[in-house]
Amino acid sequence: MKVNLQSYLSEKRQLVNEQLENYVRDYSYPGRLQDAMLYSIEAGGKRLRPILLMATAEAFGVEEVKTLAVASGLEMIHTYSLIHDDLPAMDNDDIRRGMPTSHKKFDEATAILAGDALLTLSSQVITDNEKLTDEQKVFLVRELSKASGARGMVEGQMKDMESENRSVSLEELEYIHKNKTGQLLNFAVMAGAYLGEATDFEMDQMKHMGQALGLIFQIQDDILDVTGDADKIGKPVGSDEGNHKSTYPKLLGLDGAKEQKNRLVQTAVEALEQAGVNDSWLSELIDHLSSRDH
Amino acid sequence: MKVNLQSYLSEKRQLVNEQLENYVRDYSYPGRLQDAMLYSIEAGGKRLRPILLMATAEAFGVEEVKTLAVASGLEMIHTYSLIHDDLPAMDNDDIRRGMPTSHKKFDEATAILAGDALLTLSSQVITDNEKLTDEQKVFLVRELSKASGARGMVEGQMKDMESENRSVSLEELEYIHKNKTGQLLNFAVMAGAYLGEATDFEMDQMKHMGQALGLIFQIQDDILDVTGDADKIGKPVGSDEGNHKSTYPKLLGLDGAKEQKNRLVQTAVEALEQAGVNDSWLSELIDHLSSRDH
Repeated sequence: MKVNLQSYLSEKRQLVNEQLENYVRDYSYPGRLQDAMLYSIEAGGKRLRPILLMATAEAFGVEEVKTLAVASGLEMIHTYSLIHDDLPAMDNDDIRRGMPTSHKKFDEATAILAGDALLTLSSQVITDNEKLTDEQKVFLVRELSKASGARGMVEGQMKDMESENRSVSLEELEYIHKNKTGQLLNFAVMAGAYLGEATDFEMDQMKHMGQALGLIFQIQDDILDVTGDADKIGKPVGSDEGNHKSTYPKLLGLDGAKEQKNRLVQTAVEALEQAGVNDSWLSELIDHLSSRDH
Repeated sequence: MKVNLQSYLSEKRQLVNEQLENYVRDYSYPGRLQDAMLYSIEAGGKRLRPILLMATAEAFGVEEVKTLAVASGLEMIHTYSLIHDDLPAMDNDDIRRGMPTSHKKFDEATAILAGDALLTLSSQVITDNEKLTDEQKVFLVRELSKASGARGMVEGQMKDMESENRSVSLEELEYIHKNKTGQLLNFAVMAGAYLGEATDFEMDQMKHMGQALGLIFQIQDDILDVTGDADKIGKPVGSDEGNHKSTYPKLLGLDGAKEQKNRLVQTAVEALEQAGVNDSWLSELIDHLSSRDH
């Protein structure tokens, strides 16, 4: 089964990559801004968010072509957030995925503008898509804005910046993760179920699943920082320790963090069963995310 | 008439200010991010873009309440662009409207995030508004994204950054202004006419008017930098000269720039007549913008 999931992920990743590149080329002019947008888009990544959206939509019987605009818009938001988070005034990272970050490759002004342009493009490709109804576009843009804005991802990043170099309670840590990474993952699941005309009960179950998945993802990130292989995760092991970052292993111990993760996996699996979509790629994705080694 | 226009502008400005503040409070949590968003929103400004949108909508018989979300969303875009443009990596301005810029009052990370949050909020308040139909929301979000993104405002700012410290042709200068400031002004006019169900012919006329207005605005800016009163314009006279910035007076001479402006005023006035809305606040707004002293 592992082989199948890998080929599923790789097929979807390629589709998302092509779509993203086409969108950037179609909606910008050749020049420095486009170069910087393409540079970060082409830097790749797991494309977890769009794939999660597409896998959920598939589980609810949605045609793939209806998911491409919103899946791409979602990944544009994620990409812009990485560009801005890497800036010297924020996390000050010079390298991402083995390549110079946008402001190192270009300059800070270009990186800021490329991020702004990708964020803006996200709403544009969703509203400009011919496969979605107006009602769907409005729902998707509204929920994506909500998940990524001042009560979502941006708030999470702000609180993360504020918590640097001081000790953070488990409650604060969960608040940061729920907003900074959880809300976009949750949006992916909700958007897929919405396009599949899930019932209110199914939507609620998928919300539980999305929230659990966000935390699983983060706990595994923290665990990998302690136990992972530096070559695989692409950053030195123990870098959170060096950065005085609060992590689940630090707050709960390594075993405690693993137990917490396993409880969340249980929650996510049960929610999938309740929503009647456990016989889908989503079950394997949960398993994959909770046991990934990078 | 001048007194009336002033009280019209002041009434609308107050309405826009209240609406913007309410939106920020309603769509964010108390804390540093909200403080920074409110700080820039409350720094005020002429609110030219939302007022132009509302005046156009009024000329086409639209109820004011239907314009508030999109007028606010438009001003959020303008505000975020000022926050990001002021950053050290961009124009590096410490003062705006007599107050410290966002990154001086807070810090760079907070300024970047407050800008990102305002940009995101723009789509959210439009899609979340109860006075607009889904069709209207989709049109407005799509056109606003287009005007403010990689083929609009952000592209204009990128090209402006690229043209620093070198001489720029009249063609390049117009390209920068059309994108950096023109497209949002043009959106204001188009959105108002669209909500008023303008015919295709009227929309075309309003497009001419919007484009002319954008250039009038910019030429007058450049003229004021030569002939203006530093206390009124809020920055030293001649600062463009010191910055080696290309301007209309430099390229056309002061008289040439004034002539160009007058021709554009003529174009704008004729377009209003053709669209049958010359008996509105728009005529006075053109006059006001072309002769403003700050």
